[in-house]
This record gives sequence, structure tokens and C-alpha cells, in this order.
Amino acid sequence: MLRFGLFGAGRIGRVHAASLAAHPRTELAIVYDPIEVAAHEVATLYGATPTQDAEAILADPAIDAVIIASPTPTHVDLLTASAQAGKAILCEKPIDACAEEIKGLNATVMVGFNRRFDPTFAAVRDRVANGEIGRLEQLLITSRDPAPAPAAYIASSGGLFRDMTIHDFDMARFFLGEVTEVQATGANLIEPYIAEAGDVDSALVTLRGAGGELCQITNSRRCAFGYDQRIEAFGAAGMLSVGNHTATSVRLSGAAGTETAPPYLNFFLDRYATAYAAELDHLVVCIEQGLTPSPGFADGRAALVLADAATESAKTGRVVRVEAAGGS
Amino acid sequence: MLRFGLFGAGRIGRVHAASLAAHPRTELAIVYDPIEVAAHEVATLYGATPTQDAEAILADPAIDAVIIASPTPTHVDLLTASAQAGKAILCEKPIDACAEEIKGLNATVMVGFNRRFDPTFAAVRDRVANGEIGRLEQLLITSRDPAPAPAAYIASSGGLFRDMTIHDFDMARFFLGEVTEVQATGANLIEPYIAEAGDVDSALVTLRGAGGELCQITNSRRCAFGYDQRIEAFGAAGMLSVGNHTATSVRLSGAAGTETAPPYLNFFLDRYATAYAAELDHLVVCIEQGLTPSPGFADGRAALVLADAATESAKTGRVVRVEAAGGS
Amino acid sequence: MLRFGLFGAGRIGRVHAASLAAHPRTELAIVYDPIEVAAHEVATLYGATPTQDAEAILADPAIDAVIIASPTPTHVDLLTASAQAGKAILCEKPIDACAEEIKGLNATVMVGFNRRFDPTFAAVRDRVANGEIGRLEQLLITSRDPAPAPAAYIASSGGLFRDMTIHDFDMARFFLGEVTEVQATGANLIEPYIAEAGDVDSALVTLRGAGGELCQITNSRRCAFGYDQRIEAFGAAGMLSVGNHTATSVRLSGAAGTETAPPYLNFFLDRYATAYAAELDHLVVCIEQGLTPSPGFADGRAALVLADAATESAKTGRVVRVEAAGGS
Amino acid sequence: MLRFGLFGAGRIGRVHAASLAAHPRTELAIVYDPIEVAAHEVATLYGATPTQDAEAILADPAIDAVIIASPTPTHVDLLTASAQAGKAILCEKPIDACAEEIKGLNATVMVGFNRRFDPTFAAVRDRVANGEIGRLEQLLITSRDPAPAPAAYIASSGGLFRDMTIHDFDMARFFLGEVTEVQATGANLIEPYIAEAGDVDSALVTLRGAGGELCQITNSRRCAFGYDQRIEAFGAAGMLSVGNHTATSVRLSGAAGTETAPPYLNFFLDRYATAYAAELDHLVVCIEQGLTPSPGFADGRAALVLADAATESAKTGRVVRVEAAGGS
Repeated sequence: MLRFGLFGAGRIGRVHAASLAAHPRTELAIVYDPIEVAAHEVATLYGATPTQDAEAILADPAIDAVIIASPTPTHVDLLTASAQAGKAILCEKPIDACAEEIKGLNATVMVGFNRRFDPTFAAVRDRVANGEIGRLEQLLITSRDPAPAPAAYIASSGGLFRDMTIHDFDMARFFLGEVTEVQATGANLIEPYIAEAGDVDSALVTLRGAGGELCQITNSRRCAFGYDQRIEAFGAAGMLSVGNHTATSVRLSGAAGTETAPPYLNFFLDRYATAYAAELDHLVVCIEQGLTPSPGFADGRAALVLADAATESAKTGRVVRVEAAGGS
Repeated sequence: MLRFGLFGAGRIGRVHAASLAAHPRTELAIVYDPIEVAAHEVATLYGATPTQDAEAILADPAIDAVIIASPTPTHVDLLTASAQAGKAILCEKPIDACAEEIKGLNATVMVGFNRRFDPTFAAVRDRVANGEIGRLEQLLITSRDPAPAPAAYIASSGGLFRDMTIHDFDMARFFLGEVTEVQATGANLIEPYIAEAGDVDSALVTLRGAGGELCQITNSRRCAFGYDQRIEAFGAAGMLSVGNHTATSVRLSGAAGTETAPPYLNFFLDRYATAYAAELDHLVVCIEQGLTPSPGFADGRAALVLADAATESAKTGRVVRVEAAGGS
Repeated sequence: MLRFGLFGAGRIGRVHAASLAAHPRTELAIVYDPIEVAAHEVATLYGATPTQDAEAILADPAIDAVIIASPTPTHVDLLTASAQAGKAILCEKPIDACAEEIKGLNATVMVGFNRRFDPTFAAVRDRVANGEIGRLEQLLITSRDPAPAPAAYIASSGGLFRDMTIHDFDMARFFLGEVTEVQATGANLIEPYIAEAGDVDSALVTLRGAGGELCQITNSRRCAFGYDQRIEAFGAAGMLSVGNHTATSVRLSGAAGTETAPPYLNFFLDRYATAYAAELDHLVVCIEQGLTPSPGFADGRAALVLADAATESAKTGRVVRVEAAGGS
Repeated sequence: MLRFGLFGAGRIGRVHAASLAAHPRTELAIVYDPIEVAAHEVATLYGATPTQDAEAILADPAIDAVIIASPTPTHVDLLTASAQAGKAILCEKPIDACAEEIKGLNATVMVGFNRRFDPTFAAVRDRVANGEIGRLEQLLITSRDPAPAPAAYIASSGGLFRDMTIHDFDMARFFLGEVTEVQATGANLIEPYIAEAGDVDSALVTLRGAGGELCQITNSRRCAFGYDQRIEAFGAAGMLSVGNHTATSVRLSGAAGTETAPPYLNFFLDRYATAYAAELDHLVVCIEQGLTPSPGFADGRAALVLADAATESAKTGRVVRVEAAGGS
């Protein structure tokens, strides 16, 4: 039984807490959150100890692993300290700082690119890898959020490419391995406060893979019909594609239209619920068997490199060439 | 160039007139309708001669073939007379009278079971015949009209099974060959005037094929979302199925629902437009090459036998066994 | 925390054991199975006590409720004894004996018609009840197993209508309330050993609801493409329909065909996994709040009445009229 | 009755000949082709006169209109001469030369961007214009040919963007009106002879519309599953999308996969058969009523401007800004 500490008892922290409770070989031992009532609530639900002292988790030798689900600005410090404390780590967001600090520590670090663990996306990637569509030529990723985050979030998000497209960059790398060129176009079509924050709310990004593949990412901060998450992998021998998911398989036909499906699953907590559990299971197996989790720390950095290249391309109107960044 | 005479310049007569005009090897020569303006209108559109004298068509040796698209009560007389006049015949409705009269005449008679010529249904039947789903075990036919016919039509229609299900009975025979048992259940769920006419407006019919197959027909005189025409052929190795057709392939996704297709094609003139042209082409080829058209006169009678068995079963609540009726 | 005893550590017993473990307010306390290793295995997995003494469960006042997942012949005795012992009961199969024995006991009895708790079927039924398609006119239920049970099972199954169609009869009652007429046609198209056991392997059943609705059930013991579980609810204003479920939403397009979905979920444990958990939750809420679970004992008997009527109709070729049987 | 002359009796010329024959108010009077047997064959089929003298068509005052379906290099001369001869003109390919020559002639010129007349694409555009999805934000066009043209064709095609993407550029303008920015990325993934000709066989193009909309075009010269022609129009209130078309609506479910649709319609003659007829009808109505056809000469030039911008962008890796080019 692996004993976990959880940093952060917010929305995503609760998802991980539930996964830990449901996993047969993990236990949520301790929950840190600076807001006492939040830590208490989550801890009580799963029989764990609440704390407002992050050090208590790091110092406890009975804690095998931590999940960093606290606000993004805290990630670098918590990841560094956790690595130094010898904990296995699942960090929700990719990080491009502190690489030097953790380099010699041999820490087990996993980055929360949960979509790799979605059964459908994973199946497509396996089938592409197995040659079912021949050589992969084009990868099309559609990724639209149901509604824009509030102004306060946008202001500190790091921008669309780092905050939202980052998952699509990782998905591109999941299929293509390395990426060599980035070209991005952004637009402000939705909310004035996004433009005022110096960010875009809509974007098209074109990538070229190291194997010559073309990849296209379509983003929007708003989608009237739910969380739009689709992939098309097009190859010499055919295409594998993934549509959106609905809560039920009901279809309505009436005088106004036929075969109407329900609205799509609303957002990532619904759409990727299975993926979060599978992600945790991967980490557990890696810890148990001494393996290196994937996506690891380097994969997080590689995606951030693409995000920064996209930001630059959108500003300059030029293709940005990137170096292979490692990772898996 | 085959020269055709047309009996009846109504809705379905106009469909055949258009098919004759578009076919490269036929010519619409003469149009009969007791309503002068109707005959005139259709004749003018296609450069034919209008007439109110049906005999003129039968007596003209330059007329090779006739299409009987006049009201149903006139069919027996027109078919008999046309056969005696040596014309090839396409009769819109199946007939169970006058078999004796035409027996020795060697007439080329085709019955207007146009659905056999629908490219989609024909493809399914060919694929079943080619063994793609192994032995056929179950055949499910859904057939719903968009809206009930008016009371006057219902009163003289011969009843749901003879008027509407008749096409489904033919479709059953198209797949199964002969049918040995009929079981039917009717209901009045739609319009009081249908019950008042002693007819049902909804029905479920179960057939057993000579090869042991089970067949299910679902009927309704009303369907809010258009003309509902579907088939499932289920066999030992799989299933071939046919969905409804829409005018365009557009889908709408919005906050209220996703992937909404347009309403289905409204009724048989739209849904089976291609089938009418293919039906005519089959007759033309048969005339040109001296072949026997299928479905022929005997197929019409065989379907009527099933309709009468269904009527009896719905009344008595008992399975009705039927003799093989021939046809193709 | 409700403490449960489990009778039967086989395939379906394990499903319930897992649901009990995952439910936040239940605990699997004790597992009975005459096969020691089976009881031990399941008990160990969830920290429960294994036993070969069924009486031990009934006699233990700390056990609030039992799940009867043992072989069908044991159900009557276990249900009666459990009711007498004052336990709340979830019985996997419907029972038509022992009604007298349990009548005065005020026992909380739930029958394992799990499909009522499938989110998709439940959604359709709610939407029909909310009037979304107007008056319900026709209900079509397709239910095909992936492969026939072995000869030994078939021999003691009670026949297709009691063993397999029983779930469809309950689904019909879920939508229609009471049923007044049953008409059934069976066939032997699949395995000779089914005919040799005096049973059919394929069937079409027509029901008439108390409100005049028509209902059609299509059954087969074999389906090449997986577990075929579909429903169409057709009404005056439209249709709600449910398609099959696949493990992923991937589609393949290639030279041989396009938009190929994966095979459907293989069988009931996969297709109705969510339903089993929701079923248990319903029982838990009923116990906690002193409510009567639905489907209850009377619903089980009502479905068995329909099964027997179908058996008789298939033999005699006649409609069988049934009395309203109560239940919910 | 409008009398047409046809330049070119090849594949596309025959499509127009058939449309002219089927249209109730047009007549194919004369067919020019330098290959005598081709002109003769098409002329005979529709009762027209064959000729090897293009001047004969231009000089004949009884010819109201011409269709230029000859090889692309002949278009400029034929269009100029036809305009000078006062004929109404449907020219298969867009032209950016001879604008000066025809400027003062007030000629009725239509360009063969037939996709605007596809009922499905036209319906989407109308619905977008009617505000059904709110403000249009993103337009995604997928356009893949079933197989690359032979080396000889590629060598003289003018390149992917002028030869193939040109239709997608027109479709972008059909929805967006003017385009202000072009960014393109090409790749060689299919056939070496395409790279050897200095052309690309795969491409991603990003456009920005004058209203700020983002538009994405995905191209490939090869598609294993047929002619891939899809559009997604994404707006503030939802999305309208168009899938591919198949010859029948049959679906196959078997052990290897479920719901397999047939391969898509093979190429443009099949997919856009209806569009060619509707295109001709538009020209006929314009001639009859003295209206200006759309897409007109200026629309052809505007699309070519985008093609050249894409070519430049693909070479330089930079966004190319374009001036509004007029047209409709």
C-alpha cells in the first residue's frame, strides 16, 4: 500500500483524492491546503489527516509519494522540495524551471498530461503505432473549452498557448515524438477582457513533426456545445478519428431535426475522469516497479518549449524552428 | 426508342413522366387522364400528346408499353386491356384479380414495388445474398409514413395492410423469398377517423420465412420526423442496416443538443426518387431483351396474400399460415 | 454504514462485492459460498469474512442487508429466510414462488432488474415520461446476447423467455406500466442443443400496453458484433433511441470501409457496469430512508407472468391476454 | 431555350453535356474538340453537331453561351474570344490573365467553382448567414483527393495551391468574404515525383478573414478512403458541420468492427454531381434574367491571389498579407 500526501484540496485535488481512495494499492494519508476547511473536508471524506503545514508531509518518512495540485505558482518550490525529500511526485502542471535543482536527485516525477491516459486517445495512438493507418501524415487536434476562464485567471495564466494549448502540444508529441517547426495564429473573438490581458482567445497552430508529419491544432476558449475534444490521425492507409463524448447514448428525432445527441460532456473533469484514474495507476505501477513515469519532467518542458514558440510565431508571423527537447 | 403511354397524370404519373423523359431510350408519347387539364399539362411538359380516350393508347400499335398510374380501382381493367393489346405494362399497385384473364397472354407485366430498386436496399439484399452476414436469421423492417392519408383515402384504401404494409411485405419477400406464417397486431393511436373506417393506424407484424427466418415489420401512419424507412438484416456473422436519408449531410451542434441532422426526406417521392428511375430502367431492359420483369404480377399477388393474412391475424389473434405464392 | 452479507461469490457476486466496496456508505461484511476458495478469494479482496454457513449471515444482527447472487435454484429459500431474518434483500433473479411466505414480513426486497438503472435507458424513460415525444405509441427493444450459454445452462434456464427476455419484459413494464397482451414467435436458428433442450434461440415478441401502446421485443442468443442492447421509444411527437456502446469512441476509415466503430461492449457485465452500482445505491437509499425499492418483488413476478404468456403464445400461435400484475 | 456550345469533350465536358441535356431550358448545340472522335461521340449522344473549328462556335449568332472545358492553357484565349463574341461563358478554371481585355465587354462570365452549388455546403453557408451559429469564428475545410494525379499532370498543374487548394480558397471566400492573411505549410509525404516537380503533396493553410475569423484548410493529394470533403463552421452559438457522402446508407456490423459505412464517393464527379447541375442552372437563370453570375471572373482571380500567397508563405515561412480582391 503506497501512502500519498496531497498538496491542494481544490477541484483537481479532489479528483486525485477520489482516485487514491478507489485504487486498491494506494492510501490518501494526508491533505495539505492553506485553507483549513478545505483540507479538513477532503481529509474527512477519505479518512486522511488534514494539515496546513506542507513541511509535515515532506518530513514524514511514511509518505511515499505526493500529488501537487496546489495553485501553479507553488509548483516549482513544492516539486523541488518533494524531490529533495525523496518522494515520488505527480505534478499537475508542466514546469520548465528547477531542472537543475532536481537533476541529480533521481526523483520519480510525473507530469499531469492526463489525456495520454484517456482510453480513446491511447487506443488511437496504439493503433497508429501498430501501423493500422500506415505512415502517419497528418494529425488534427481540436480542443475547445466550454467557456473562458474569468479575467483574474486569464491574467495569470501565462497565455493561451502555455495554459490551454499545452495539453495539445503534449498530445502532438504523444503521436509525433519531436516537433521541429511551430507556426501559430491567434485571434480575439470572444471576450474583451482576454484581449485586454494581452492574450488571444482563439488560435490555429501548425506543427511539423521530426518525421515530416503535419499537425494542426484548433483552439477556442469558448464552445457552445460543451468541451470539444477531438483527434484525427490521417495516414497513408486510412484515418483513425475520435469524436466527442456524451453522458448517454440517447438520440432524439423530432420535427425540428433528427438524431440529436445530448450536449457533450461539459469539461475536463467529466471528459477525462477515466484518464485521471489511469494516470494515477501508471504512477503507482512505476513506483512499485522502479520504472520512470511517462510523461515525465522532460515532457513537461518540451511542451512548454512549443508553447513559447507558438507565442513567438503568433507575434511575428513567422515559423519558429525548435530543437528536440527530449522526453518520451 | 421505346414509346410509352401513361395512364394517369397525377402525382405518381408525373414521376414516371419525368423518368421517361430522362431515360435515353424511352419516349413519353401519350398521356391519358380523364381530367383534361392534367393530361394537357403533363403532355406539354414532355412533348407528348394528351388524351381523354384510354382506348386510343391501347389501339395504337406504335405504343410499346404503358404505365398504369391511375386510381387503384381502374387498375384491373386497364391491366387486362393493356395485356390483351400486347403492351408491356408497369402497374403501380399489385393486383390479385384478373390472373386468369391474362394468363395465356404472355404479357410483360411489372408491379410497382419500387423499393426493390432503391440503391441502398438493393445493396443490402445483394450483400446478404453474397453471404456477408452468414445465414440470414432476422429481418427488421421499419416503415412509417409522415402523416396519415385523409379520411376519404383511408376509407377506400383496403386497409393498412393492403395499402401501406404491402410494400413491406414485398420487401420481406425480396429478402426471404417465401413466407409461411403471419402474425399481426394493430392499434388505433393516431386519428379517430381511421378507427371509424374500421382500420388501424399502427401495426406490428411478425413473419416466418420458408427458411426459418424471423421477420418483423413496424408500421405507423404518422411519424413526426419524416418518412421512416429502415431495414436491419441480422445474420449469423453480423448485421447490415440502413438508416434514413436526409436532404443534406449537415449536422448542427449547439447548447441544446449536438449532431442534429436535418429532418428525414419527407415521403416516398423524395426518398425513392432514384428507385423510380431504376425501376423504369429495369422494365426497359426487360422489354428490349425479352426478359421477365421482377417484381412481376405474381409478386403482387403474393404480397396481397400476406396482407390478407395479416388482416385476419390482427382480427383473430392467431398465427395465419400461408401457402407459397410463387413470384420472384 | 450499512453492513452487507453476500450469498454467492461467482461472476455476478463479484460485481456486487466491488460495488459495495466502492459505495461510501456500505461495507461488505461477510461472503457466503459453498466453494471455500471462492468465498475466501472475494472476502480477502474486500476485507470481509468468508463463510460456508449461510445461517451465520442470517443469524448475525449486525448484518443489515443481503445480496442473493447464488445459483437460481437457491433463491426462493434464501429470499424467504432472509426476509424472515429481517434483512433488506437484493435478489438477482425475479421469483414467483414464496409470495405468501413473505407477505406479512414487510421485507425490503429489490429484484435485480439492473437495466432500469442504466443511465441511458433511465434518461430515455424520464424523457418519455416528461412528454418529450408526446404520447408513447411504440416501444422497440432489441436484445441479443453475444453467444449462447452452454447446453448445461440452457437445460436448467427455464427457457429463453424466462431467462433472457425477462429483462426485456421488465424494460417494457418500465416504460408501459402494465401489459395486457402477449404474442410470441420463436425459432431455432443457432445451436442444435438449444432445440434439443426444447427451447428456442431466437424470438420476436409483441406486447400491447394497458395504454394501447405497441411493444416489440427482438431476441437472439447469438450476436456476432457483441451485446446488442437498443431501445426505440416512438411517440406522437418524435422518437428517442439508444444505440449500442463501445469501449472507445474511435472510428477507422480505410479503403475497405469508413467510420468503423469498435465491436460493442461484450456482455452485460461491461454494458451495465454503471447500472449495477446505481442499482445498489438505490437499495442503500431505500434502506436508509425506509422507502420501498423499485423494481420490487411484485415487479419480478409481473415479468415472469409475461414470460409464461410468451411461452404459451409461441406454442399455440395465439395471443395470450394477461392480467395486470401490480408492481411499479 | 438557350443554345450552348461546348469547348472540350473530355471528362468534365461530358458532365456539362449531360447537365445541358437534362436541363429543361438548355440545348447542347455544338461540341468542339480537337480530337474528332471525342467531339463526335459527345455530340451524337445528345443530338449536337461536332466540330474541330472553335471559331465556328464563336461566329454562330445562334449560340447564346459557351462552356470552356478544354485544357487549362486554352482558357485565356477562349474566354477572351468568347467574351468578344458576346457569348455568356462558364469557364471551368479561374483565370487571372485577360482581365483588361474583357473589362469593357460587359461579358457574362461564370467561374467553375462548383462546390458553392453543392446542396450541403450551400445549406451550411445559408444557415451561417442566417445567424444559426452566431458570429462565425472558425472555418475548417478538409479537402483530400483520393489519389495523386500522374506526374505529367502535376508538372503542368501550377502547384498544389493553384490546382487543388484553389477550390478551398473559394470555399473560404464563400463563407468569409475577403481574406487578409495567408500562412501555409507544405510537405512531401506521398510520391517522390511530386517533390521532383517542385511541388508539395500535403499542406496546411491558415487564413484570417476580414472579419477576424480564423480559417484552416487541410489538404492531401491522397486519401485511402475516398474523396475527403468536409467543412466545419464554428461560431459563438454552435457548429454546423458536413461529413462525407457515401453511395448508399448501408452500415455493416460484424465481429471485426461495427457500423462500417461504405467507402466515400470516389472523386469530384461523384461527390459534386448535383453541384454541376445546379451550377449550370444558376448560369441559365442569370442569362435569362440579365443577372451577374456568382462566382464570377473576379472571384476566380481572388482565389488565385490566395493561392499565390500560400505558395509564397510555404516558401518563406512567413505570413503573407493580401489585399481585398473584390468578387462576391
